[in-house]
Amino acid sequence: MTETDPAPIRLLGLSGSIRRTSASTAILRTIGARLTEPIMLSLFDLRPLPPYDEDDDETGREPPVVVALKEAVAACDGLLVVTPEYNHSIPGVLKNAVDWVSRPGYESILKGKPVALATVSSSPRGGIRAQSHLHDVFLSTLSRIVPGRQVAIGNIESKIRDGALTDESSLRIMTRLVADLIDEIKLVRRRAD
Amino acid sequence: MTETDPAPIRLLGLSGSIRRTSASTAILRTIGARLTEPIMLSLFDLRPLPPYDEDDDETGREPPVVVALKEAVAACDGLLVVTPEYNHSIPGVLKNAVDWVSRPGYESILKGKPVALATVSSSPRGGIRAQSHLHDVFLSTLSRIVPGRQVAIGNIESKIRDGALTDESSLRIMTRLVADLIDEIKLVRRRAD
Amino acid sequence: MTETDPAPIRLLGLSGSIRRTSASTAILRTIGARLTEPIMLSLFDLRPLPPYDEDDDETGREPPVVVALKEAVAACDGLLVVTPEYNHSIPGVLKNAVDWVSRPGYESILKGKPVALATVSSSPRGGIRAQSHLHDVFLSTLSRIVPGRQVAIGNIESKIRDGALTDESSLRIMTRLVADLIDEIKLVRRRAD
Amino acid sequence: MTETDPAPIRLLGLSGSIRRTSASTAILRTIGARLTEPIMLSLFDLRPLPPYDEDDDETGREPPVVVALKEAVAACDGLLVVTPEYNHSIPGVLKNAVDWVSRPGYESILKGKPVALATVSSSPRGGIRAQSHLHDVFLSTLSRIVPGRQVAIGNIESKIRDGALTDESSLRIMTRLVADLIDEIKLVRRRAD
Repeated sequence: MTETDPAPIRLLGLSGSIRRTSASTAILRTIGARLTEPIMLSLFDLRPLPPYDEDDDETGREPPVVVALKEAVAACDGLLVVTPEYNHSIPGVLKNAVDWVSRPGYESILKGKPVALATVSSSPRGGIRAQSHLHDVFLSTLSRIVPGRQVAIGNIESKIRDGALTDESSLRIMTRLVADLIDEIKLVRRRAD
Repeated sequence: MTETDPAPIRLLGLSGSIRRTSASTAILRTIGARLTEPIMLSLFDLRPLPPYDEDDDETGREPPVVVALKEAVAACDGLLVVTPEYNHSIPGVLKNAVDWVSRPGYESILKGKPVALATVSSSPRGGIRAQSHLHDVFLSTLSRIVPGRQVAIGNIESKIRDGALTDESSLRIMTRLVADLIDEIKLVRRRAD
Repeated sequence: MTETDPAPIRLLGLSGSIRRTSASTAILRTIGARLTEPIMLSLFDLRPLPPYDEDDDETGREPPVVVALKEAVAACDGLLVVTPEYNHSIPGVLKNAVDWVSRPGYESILKGKPVALATVSSSPRGGIRAQSHLHDVFLSTLSRIVPGRQVAIGNIESKIRDGALTDESSLRIMTRLVADLIDEIKLVRRRAD
Repeated sequence: MTETDPAPIRLLGLSGSIRRTSASTAILRTIGARLTEPIMLSLFDLRPLPPYDEDDDETGREPPVVVALKEAVAACDGLLVVTPEYNHSIPGVLKNAVDWVSRPGYESILKGKPVALATVSSSPRGGIRAQSHLHDVFLSTLSRIVPGRQVAIGNIESKIRDGALTDESSLRIMTRLVADLIDEIKLVRRRAD
């Protein structure tokens, strides 16, 4: 690796909503389109994931889509999670994905993985209660939650147009979040050296 | 309704784990088998539920299994939720079920519904962090969380045998939880009168 | 007690901020001034409370101000807590007051006591993270958190003038919260009968 | 600074209980006595702290003991917080200390500060609910919570003798927590270089 050939940084984006017009997915797509090499963001669609079943988990007979998700998480340098809040907590769809990926406990591929979180809501609250629960979850998996001010985008409907995040202030905030995530990734890499 | 013909009390049991040998499911079955008329407990298996999709929700094209779950919740007088803790939070499977049932926000069939909660874990902690998140969730749906000491059964493996809860102390605690749930149901009914 | 002489309802107001110009205190005063017999609201100033010390607690040598707080809580029919959020949680001053009042655990004067909660903040978030922690706390003391939509007043500076809550919408929300608190008090009383 | 003269590492210990025979304080003292140069642990007694008052905060007229606490936090390389759980949350005494130290919001001396957390309880739960709230608090102050398995010591009475932590397993866990804290301190220092 030379100075002119920097190490690629692979981010994996997870959207907590599977609806077609999801604002969370729109934000991830908008951010992904703005990244430039060597930084890349790919999305993993959580819709096909079956409900987490410890029996499958223990026998090792994991469904192919679960294997694919685990490979994607293992291969990435950092996670970017963008999600709505459902009932003051994490959407079941997103939590179910973490449940699959988080085994075996304390020794999963999430251990030490830098994770950046953003929540959105149509209210001014911005989904911060879901974010607090996500903290509990990712701390339990020994991931590295990227330190910084919480990114919580309220009144989200007015900030998305034609499937893209168009609000300037929110774009700035998301860009800074990704920069912080990359900082944390580099910090962890330096330690590994 | 006469003295000798008391109103039936229908409880709906939800297990947060879909594994075949789930301790949560075993507890619900054990409790159900011990109830006597006019109190009944039926279980609803969460495995066939698809991931919650707001698009389906808004178009009203709900999958039949979702319709069935909603009917079961609407028909019951109180919910009995028993669940393991995954990653210091609610299993995605269980949260996904609540996501389906909780719409429309603040006006769903969960509003005013008495809910009793119990968590289990193989550690001595008993899943109390998941229970805290469940509080947030059921308070957000305006359900009535049955007041009382948290029921959190740790070291659960040693307390289940042949698919049944056999630990005497845990049985007493669960029996009291159900009694408290029934008290709350009666309190709410009296108000409705 | 005759029809024309309804039972008085005594509410105790606790403000989570002791600053002179506290918005939380201003809200409590505004609400108190609008109540009419037989409903009364008195405030208890938390400033003179010493830090909770289990040694004092166990020896029973409680400072006079602690005794006074406990008497006020014991004498009231319901608690109305209005508080800012500090560091995404409950102000230490308010938590310290609950620590004093909450002993002995599970059998304190908070057990079964109806509690209504409102949080305020200068941001649009309205202090909802502190509210979630207050839920954990008051559920642990076996108090009855009044069910209903969370009351969280954001952008509070613009809604207080001359030491009074002047925002019409917030006044309506607070009035409904007090009505819900009184409903719960009556529900509990009916059960006691 | 030469190889043979490593940079000192100053840890500040905060105990969430001010009782004379506090297990949290005993743990901090035991750990402190076992550290060797260049690592040092000093304790700050939270008892004399007045209740946090935003008025004092904004006028800058802080009580001398608050100034002393802030200086101690500013001077340390990392915080070691050991605390009981009161009412499923943080003791008011400890939260009050954080309230003083945390201003101005997002730009306080806690920003970027490594923080290691341990909770204790007489029950088998180990105070993990308080720990979850501490996560919310220290993430809000942009501190660096040391990643790792939660340190929560249950059944604490049997593990303290003559004011010292004597339980071998707990000593190992605490020693590892301090090692993780020092790792994080070094990681942060390396970045600063």
